[in-house]
Amino acid sequence: MVQNAYSFASSGAFVESFTLKPYKNGPLDGFTFAVKDNIDIEGHKTSYGSKPWGSAHKAAVYNALCVEQLLSAGATCTGKTIADEYTYSLDGESHFFGTPINPKAPDRVPGGSSSGSASAVACGLVDFSVGTDSAGSIRVPASLCGIWGMRPTLHRISEAGVLPFMPSVSTVGAFSNDIKILDKVMRTLLRSEDLEPPKIRNIYILEDAFSIADTAVNDAIRGRISHLFEIDGIAITSITLSEIAGKDIDLSVCNRQALRVLQTAEFMNTVGGWIETFDPEKSPSFSAAYENIRNFKRSELNDALLLCEKIFNRISNFTNQGDLFVFPTTPTIAPLKGSLNNLDSVLDFYDRTMDITSFAGIGRLPEISIPLTTVNGAPVGLSLAAGLYQDEFLLSAAKKLFP
Amino acid sequence: MVQNAYSFASSGAFVESFTLKPYKNGPLDGFTFAVKDNIDIEGHKTSYGSKPWGSAHKAAVYNALCVEQLLSAGATCTGKTIADEYTYSLDGESHFFGTPINPKAPDRVPGGSSSGSASAVACGLVDFSVGTDSAGSIRVPASLCGIWGMRPTLHRISEAGVLPFMPSVSTVGAFSNDIKILDKVMRTLLRSEDLEPPKIRNIYILEDAFSIADTAVNDAIRGRISHLFEIDGIAITSITLSEIAGKDIDLSVCNRQALRVLQTAEFMNTVGGWIETFDPEKSPSFSAAYENIRNFKRSELNDALLLCEKIFNRISNFTNQGDLFVFPTTPTIAPLKGSLNNLDSVLDFYDRTMDITSFAGIGRLPEISIPLTTVNGAPVGLSLAAGLYQDEFLLSAAKKLFP
Repeated sequence: MVQNAYSFASSGAFVESFTLKPYKNGPLDGFTFAVKDNIDIEGHKTSYGSKPWGSAHKAAVYNALCVEQLLSAGATCTGKTIADEYTYSLDGESHFFGTPINPKAPDRVPGGSSSGSASAVACGLVDFSVGTDSAGSIRVPASLCGIWGMRPTLHRISEAGVLPFMPSVSTVGAFSNDIKILDKVMRTLLRSEDLEPPKIRNIYILEDAFSIADTAVNDAIRGRISHLFEIDGIAITSITLSEIAGKDIDLSVCNRQALRVLQTAEFMNTVGGWIETFDPEKSPSFSAAYENIRNFKRSELNDALLLCEKIFNRISNFTNQGDLFVFPTTPTIAPLKGSLNNLDSVLDFYDRTMDITSFAGIGRLPEISIPLTTVNGAPVGLSLAAGLYQDEFLLSAAKKLFP
Repeated sequence: MVQNAYSFASSGAFVESFTLKPYKNGPLDGFTFAVKDNIDIEGHKTSYGSKPWGSAHKAAVYNALCVEQLLSAGATCTGKTIADEYTYSLDGESHFFGTPINPKAPDRVPGGSSSGSASAVACGLVDFSVGTDSAGSIRVPASLCGIWGMRPTLHRISEAGVLPFMPSVSTVGAFSNDIKILDKVMRTLLRSEDLEPPKIRNIYILEDAFSIADTAVNDAIRGRISHLFEIDGIAITSITLSEIAGKDIDLSVCNRQALRVLQTAEFMNTVGGWIETFDPEKSPSFSAAYENIRNFKRSELNDALLLCEKIFNRISNFTNQGDLFVFPTTPTIAPLKGSLNNLDSVLDFYDRTMDITSFAGIGRLPEISIPLTTVNGAPVGLSLAAGLYQDEFLLSAAKKLFP
């Protein structure tokens, strides 16, 4: 375990701490982990980042299936970590539970919604942690906290015992400071076989994601990928989403006209109905977001659903075994705490961040964020994404290209 | 609309009837449909086939996403149909809601758990209906009622607004008496583009499924597929699951050592915890099944989870574009009503049926059941399955091969 200045309490990352011993020995022997508070732990409440939700629901009777897998592989669970309210956020400033520390940039937010899981790892308090990701809730805090984070191919890891959020987009994934640990954890959850992964053949530089990023982020990331161009046998190609998906489709369309509509519509089903029925206390920031959700016209969602499937098909048909996409995980370093306090700053952060995260979201692709560099002293990650079900290839490629 | 001897009431298929007008015109103009009672309809209770569940939960605030898609495509919803208790059954005899009529074999069960959706179509009361399928809950009643039924590739159709059941297995699909209508409905839900499907290249006769079937079913189905051998350009090959997945793996292993364990574990998370917490009234048959569920040792599930993924990978790697698998949907015609009244008859029906349905379940494959023939006057279906995301190919192949 990394020695660190932060304790479980002072990190602000944990909802509660406890010890769940492993069922047996396995590849994760000796590792400790924490679990995001939208994932069930037997005998504990699952709050979903909302105190009213926690109060209204009974304690979980069973561990989530992903937790059983980790306990069966030798790991010890040491606590539950803070999630943003209903996991509907990417910033990590929780009205109900506070803001977990971003130890590499303590004046900045950790990113969300798996804020506590990222913070617990970044603070060195656990060897790995489990989170969930729909629009970037693992990738974004991994990037902003300077740690490794991965979301897998949609639905490869069971969501049984994970509160339903956005069924067509949500995944279970993990964080670690160490790619070797992340690799073991993900391979446990993915139930990977011990097979030789395909060779890396093509690396596509996703240019629209670079242009969305701040200039300093763009420059810093480009400066750390120049070695890729020197590797024999790998073709490097610049590409944009419109070259993959058609001339009217860029990342902004992918996010704002496709993914976001799907997410809004699905969230109404999984959580919105409960909110309408029980009128729970909401934070000011979630209240503002929720007004947009409840005003969404469900009879108008069909074009967006068609567009989601069209972009998914184009990305699937384009991507072959051995292909990787490379791009900045987030367009910015972490915003300063409290700085997302007006509509312009919120929209800028969310629109640009989700434009990038929507690529793997709509593509249902596995994506890994690599803690590659810093800008003004604050971390920012590089992402690799691969084709559907190429999760093991992606892990091995990340280890090989960024050892 | 087919003229028929049954009314909404006398079919016993409906929980309630009402009219939801379409939002706009579209490819489903003029068609009526019914929705299984685990799928939300705004302003109505979703009972999940259990009166205690229905009483304990508030009315749905929003329609499920799949319902919105159908209303947006021109169809009119005319009611909610009976589901088996927690949709955890394949027979269609509901303690709480009665047994929907199987109009082609009125002394026999309709099959479940989408019993009412199948019955409503078979009775000619709607043009199509929506159901869900994990271990066969669309395919089995389609076969036993003599209608078309399809489950898609896992998670291609949104499950937002559908009660969570078994997240790694459950799908939303549909029934119709007419493949042309089913095709339009599924293409609406799948958000299919208007593309030329691949050519049919290989048809694999899944021999272990034929050997599991009753001799009379085996003979009747084989008698109706002989024309496939005459088609130019299509290779026909006999195959068993062990030739695809390895010598120790047959359909019985696929079901009893893999799928069933996964299903049990996931059901504990999604419904079991609620049952443990609230101790609702249960039917005698569900109570017996539930005792097995609650006694399952979750610390022992890892081998089964690994096996699920291994078989999935083997089937995925084996299957190419243009490939079809052919097999009897169910090993038997519908059991006589009330005949599943002792452990032997229950085990025989469930074990053999799920051995066959586990192929597409573990494979996450699309499967369509075709109302092809009868045995002793009672219907039994032939299934076609295709590779992952080959749903449109499967629909076009079914239309071409069995017009």
